[in-house]
Amino acid sequence: MNTDKLPTRSENYSEWYNQLILRSELADYAPVRGCMVVRPYGWALWENIQGALDKRFKETGHSNAAFPLFIPMSFLEKEKEHVEGFSPELAIVTIGGGEKLEEPLVVRPTSETIIGYMYSKWIKSYRDLPVLINQWGNVVRWEMRTRLFLRTLEFYWQEGHTAHATAEEAVDETVRMLNVYTDFAVNEAAVPVIPGRKSETEKFAGASDSYTIEAMMGDTRALQAGTSHFLGQNFAKAFDIQFLDPGNQLQHCWTTSWGLSTRFIGAIIMTHGDDQGLVLPPRLAPIQVVIVPIFRNDDEQAKVMPVAEALNRQLSQFRVKLDTRSEVTPGFKFNDWEMRGVPLRIEIGPKDIDNGVVTVARRHTPGKAGKSTLPLGDEIAAQVQAVLDEIQAAMLEKARNFRDAHIHEPKDYEEMKQIVQDGWALAYWCGRTECEARVKEDTKATTRCIPLDQPEGQGECIVCGQPAKKKVYFARAY
Amino acid sequence: MNTDKLPTRSENYSEWYNQLILRSELADYAPVRGCMVVRPYGWALWENIQGALDKRFKETGHSNAAFPLFIPMSFLEKEKEHVEGFSPELAIVTIGGGEKLEEPLVVRPTSETIIGYMYSKWIKSYRDLPVLINQWGNVVRWEMRTRLFLRTLEFYWQEGHTAHATAEEAVDETVRMLNVYTDFAVNEAAVPVIPGRKSETEKFAGASDSYTIEAMMGDTRALQAGTSHFLGQNFAKAFDIQFLDPGNQLQHCWTTSWGLSTRFIGAIIMTHGDDQGLVLPPRLAPIQVVIVPIFRNDDEQAKVMPVAEALNRQLSQFRVKLDTRSEVTPGFKFNDWEMRGVPLRIEIGPKDIDNGVVTVARRHTPGKAGKSTLPLGDEIAAQVQAVLDEIQAAMLEKARNFRDAHIHEPKDYEEMKQIVQDGWALAYWCGRTECEARVKEDTKATTRCIPLDQPEGQGECIVCGQPAKKKVYFARAY
Repeated sequence: MNTDKLPTRSENYSEWYNQLILRSELADYAPVRGCMVVRPYGWALWENIQGALDKRFKETGHSNAAFPLFIPMSFLEKEKEHVEGFSPELAIVTIGGGEKLEEPLVVRPTSETIIGYMYSKWIKSYRDLPVLINQWGNVVRWEMRTRLFLRTLEFYWQEGHTAHATAEEAVDETVRMLNVYTDFAVNEAAVPVIPGRKSETEKFAGASDSYTIEAMMGDTRALQAGTSHFLGQNFAKAFDIQFLDPGNQLQHCWTTSWGLSTRFIGAIIMTHGDDQGLVLPPRLAPIQVVIVPIFRNDDEQAKVMPVAEALNRQLSQFRVKLDTRSEVTPGFKFNDWEMRGVPLRIEIGPKDIDNGVVTVARRHTPGKAGKSTLPLGDEIAAQVQAVLDEIQAAMLEKARNFRDAHIHEPKDYEEMKQIVQDGWALAYWCGRTECEARVKEDTKATTRCIPLDQPEGQGECIVCGQPAKKKVYFARAY
Repeated sequence: MNTDKLPTRSENYSEWYNQLILRSELADYAPVRGCMVVRPYGWALWENIQGALDKRFKETGHSNAAFPLFIPMSFLEKEKEHVEGFSPELAIVTIGGGEKLEEPLVVRPTSETIIGYMYSKWIKSYRDLPVLINQWGNVVRWEMRTRLFLRTLEFYWQEGHTAHATAEEAVDETVRMLNVYTDFAVNEAAVPVIPGRKSETEKFAGASDSYTIEAMMGDTRALQAGTSHFLGQNFAKAFDIQFLDPGNQLQHCWTTSWGLSTRFIGAIIMTHGDDQGLVLPPRLAPIQVVIVPIFRNDDEQAKVMPVAEALNRQLSQFRVKLDTRSEVTPGFKFNDWEMRGVPLRIEIGPKDIDNGVVTVARRHTPGKAGKSTLPLGDEIAAQVQAVLDEIQAAMLEKARNFRDAHIHEPKDYEEMKQIVQDGWALAYWCGRTECEARVKEDTKATTRCIPLDQPEGQGECIVCGQPAKKKVYFARAY
């Protein structure tokens, strides 16, 4: 482990982020430009994210499947906006088995087209609907400026693709999955996201409507943490996804797609991380509890280790680790597990044993304020569970307070320009692209989302003063 | 569902296999040559395979991680045998973001090279060893002749990659993971595999020694169902994977790799499938129990459905499905679930209820012999578990009996040529490539493996008559 101090967030937020990822061993740079290696600790976090989402997908009736990595170039070209949006970022296979391919193959940047093609084969009748399929996999977008987790050439995600008989059902599905993402973010990751609709400018290439969950990072910038798209009949028409309705009429389906990626790990890092490193929510942490035995000599070791090992067994219902390394000091271990964001550290030394207790330290509350003792005994697993629940709730509250303290409602455009330098502005917007563009030019802030939760009535556009029906969040974004 | 009869195995084994996969909706052909779509039913089977293997990997100390899809062409060239073996089957990305790449990128056919590069960065000291990492993902090999699951351009697999301080530890790991595969195949999939070592000709490109589990399919051909490779210091030297030993000397690591893929689904199909379709082992079946309610009118429906629904709840510990479709007959449902290989069907009609029983039908024993009744009541879940255990054991026994009945020990070369037309030959072999080549030319059979389980003593090579120390299996293979 690199023992230099991590840059602080105030010194250099961007470098704090990069160094934190490398030192906590979440990920590393790959020898291919813009690609990352997700290391075991980072992948274990992703597996927990997958588990929490997959459970929700299956509870809402979805199944997983796998569609090909390669998409014929001609497929992308069938949906005009889609190909315009994705063309600049494609990786293209031109050689296979030593021969030049007749038709180049695109490494999927997303799978609406190839899945649309398969749906057109599978769907014949209204009885085949809805089709509710999700895929866990990798996709490639040839980005020019990359950041670990936030924007990499290859990334890992899930993409749900559904087909329905009516527009209403498809819209319901779009919003249902947005709600699944919100529930996951808030209740598993303690990331208090704001669900809303994207503007025309910001929506997915090929969608009729895009919805998003937006999260505020520790530097107040916004991060799009998951999206759900109502695709209308755009892809159904491009790929002839049709069904016979009960009256024996041929109709085009209405489709949706929705995705959440390893980018979400970036959201967790920047929502909860502090100057000591990563801070992970207990529900997703690969290691929830680390036990550090403390002793200075063989006698103390003989006294402490059996108790530490017994405690390790008592806590087997958690993702627990007993740190038995002999080549490093307890102080080193404390720093090491703090860097890795383990929610709860249990220290156990000879004095603790004499007192019949262990010392617990809460990662999200550094220093003495986060420390307390728990009595050794049969109740300890229940007490550890209670502390983890308390931590989970406290992390959400802290993140929500930070977010709410950095959201302001400007009284005029001048004030808005100030607000977005260090926060989000919530303001009425007329909906016109030119007002959105002006804000971006003046401040680099973009519309993040038109929140689902809207006040009654209407107001005046913060930019042009024209009547406006909806409020929108403006913010600088990742 | 296609209601034409499935071709029988004796009519056309190959067409039986293809049609079974399409009709049971395990997979479909993709619009890209040689690629497949794994449909939800097939992917659910793969998820169960993944779960059973992943548990074993974690129990033996391995963690999962993710390495890039793209590998610089120059990496492959660092290990001579490796690049020779894989060059003919590479898919190559030459364009990214609209520009021709300076160095083409290979879509990984396997990841020894890029993982080797990362290990050389991560491993510094003997304290960093062993490194025990697995990756679940997709790989691409540009095959000319493809078959669903057995050989596709893109396939899904896990690849374990480990690094060790000594040759002995690496060999132990290679054999440990071979044993994990054997345990999985036998005890989860009821596929009685034979573990052994590959000949020089058949080993992995770049390995010092390759181990395999070989399974006999229903047409008696062999299928390599999983492999584990001792890579010696070949990749460590090519990628400078070095560590300081306790005496502060710089040493090269010893590495292994091991993989099992969606090909294993082909092994399950061809080990257990029959002329009615798929037959799945209870431990891996996506649906273990299907309940088919039987009624002819509203009164009977009112009598049957509440009992069927209660039974569905009573069996919630299983992967159970209550087939409530109203648009198809019970007979159609029977055929449908037989095609999909559901291990246990429970029929429940008005007469059954009068008698306080349900009828159960075992998929692996068609007709009356596979039917019995179980009393409705509190004990039914335990009884269903017992029947599923009985089925799992019976499937393994049946497959083992079939295999053993088709393995023969030839007394001379002429007899061997006969045996491999419809079975496997177990015979002494001198180990020389020219004898192996002669068998292949004469019979199309190849050496499948030198089984770990060997008789005492030695004999004469079945081909040339020279002294031979080991017996080997010769068979035609997929």
